[in-house]
Amino acid sequence: MHFTHNKSKYILMLTKSHIKLIASLSQKKFRTQHQLFIVEGLKGIKEFLNSSFELHQLFSVENVFNVEAILVSNQELKKISSLKTPNTALAIFKMPKLKPINENVLVVALDNVRDPGNLGTIIRLCDWFGIKDLVCNSATVDCYNPKVVQATMGSLSRVNISYLDLPQFLKEIKVETFGTFMNGKNIYIQNLPKQGVIILGNEANGISESVEAVIDKRISIPRFGDTQATESLNVATATAIALSEFKRGFTEM
Amino acid sequence: MHFTHNKSKYILMLTKSHIKLIASLSQKKFRTQHQLFIVEGLKGIKEFLNSSFELHQLFSVENVFNVEAILVSNQELKKISSLKTPNTALAIFKMPKLKPINENVLVVALDNVRDPGNLGTIIRLCDWFGIKDLVCNSATVDCYNPKVVQATMGSLSRVNISYLDLPQFLKEIKVETFGTFMNGKNIYIQNLPKQGVIILGNEANGISESVEAVIDKRISIPRFGDTQATESLNVATATAIALSEFKRGFTEM
Repeated sequence: MHFTHNKSKYILMLTKSHIKLIASLSQKKFRTQHQLFIVEGLKGIKEFLNSSFELHQLFSVENVFNVEAILVSNQELKKISSLKTPNTALAIFKMPKLKPINENVLVVALDNVRDPGNLGTIIRLCDWFGIKDLVCNSATVDCYNPKVVQATMGSLSRVNISYLDLPQFLKEIKVETFGTFMNGKNIYIQNLPKQGVIILGNEANGISESVEAVIDKRISIPRFGDTQATESLNVATATAIALSEFKRGFTEM
Repeated sequence: MHFTHNKSKYILMLTKSHIKLIASLSQKKFRTQHQLFIVEGLKGIKEFLNSSFELHQLFSVENVFNVEAILVSNQELKKISSLKTPNTALAIFKMPKLKPINENVLVVALDNVRDPGNLGTIIRLCDWFGIKDLVCNSATVDCYNPKVVQATMGSLSRVNISYLDLPQFLKEIKVETFGTFMNGKNIYIQNLPKQGVIILGNEANGISESVEAVIDKRISIPRFGDTQATESLNVATATAIALSEFKRGFTEM
């Protein structure tokens, strides 16, 4: 057994300032100020370690990754974790530098999406369908919110997410913009281009007026069931169907 | 103000046996035994009252529906509710009599779907896409689980849900059966019929071997992103895309 030469890796300890930093990162303003965010759980941390994201600090109950870690007890992990049953490790990663938005392919835009689970699912869908750019208005939930990070399962590291003035962005962009509405044109009989922006709105209120004003085309996913029901599709479900429709014609066999 | 002639409606009180019954209905075995289940919240209760479901008992802090209610205090509602912030009313409904499965249209089948949120979303999707029959193997989460009922937002009252021996059902059915797999044929280039069964599997393990053995066709939703990522689609998201593909050709313009 040769622990000695690795000793420097494990001499680090959890300090009060670590605890304070981790606690502060549950809030968006401190995430933005420090440009750091938290990933919990082995699977998620592994995906981020294998991505272009840069690790700031790793806290772990055992040495599971081949990187410098601060070893903590299960009790200490429970103290710093936001999960009910913390999962071996907690990592702090640096927020990536934003890449410029590529307007020559499909872009997904979100207007006031508030639920972290929905944003997490949408980021996973962007990853699945090869969407590189997701743009969000500033009222959309922060993509570094711990619940979003947890729900993305690593997809977050493969999608470039920009928060910006959405009406302004849509006004200036040169490609066509497609808004999803309850009363738009049937998405199944549209010619959907290889480039463009697909816009999805708030869970309860849909797309806001200021965004609607600058949208080129209104599209809808038709309802096949009884018309008595007033339910709309969940925004993540609608994103899945819209992305499938835009991409299905460009599939490789 | 003429309250007198309505008085009989409000003389009823919350009793210990009500409390015991409501508590017991959080468990599947008692739901099955009593053939009763719980709906919470005004919106959900309203949808069930407007459906073919029969009300067993309503508990409410105010007289909001035009039906016999047991008036309760906010404290009493909190006591009987499973929600953190109970919402004005709690109702007990009778489970509907199962209708025979119509095999001449599209049927959705679930094999070991365990997450109540996923089942709730899938029931809403069936409702949206006009699927009348959802069949589940017995290990799939109970559709009268309170979390499922909450997630369906009333769609539960419009979809006929049968729990049965899934391999046996698929073996005996005369229409084609389509299983969703990671390595099936590209769903976008298949001829998808108006009738058939679409099978979706467990969140982590997919379709089980005994079900796989009796499936006619293996289909997949192709991945467009980088192949480095090993993620699969969430089962509810996969259901959305599969239903959209099966139904898109039969849309009314």
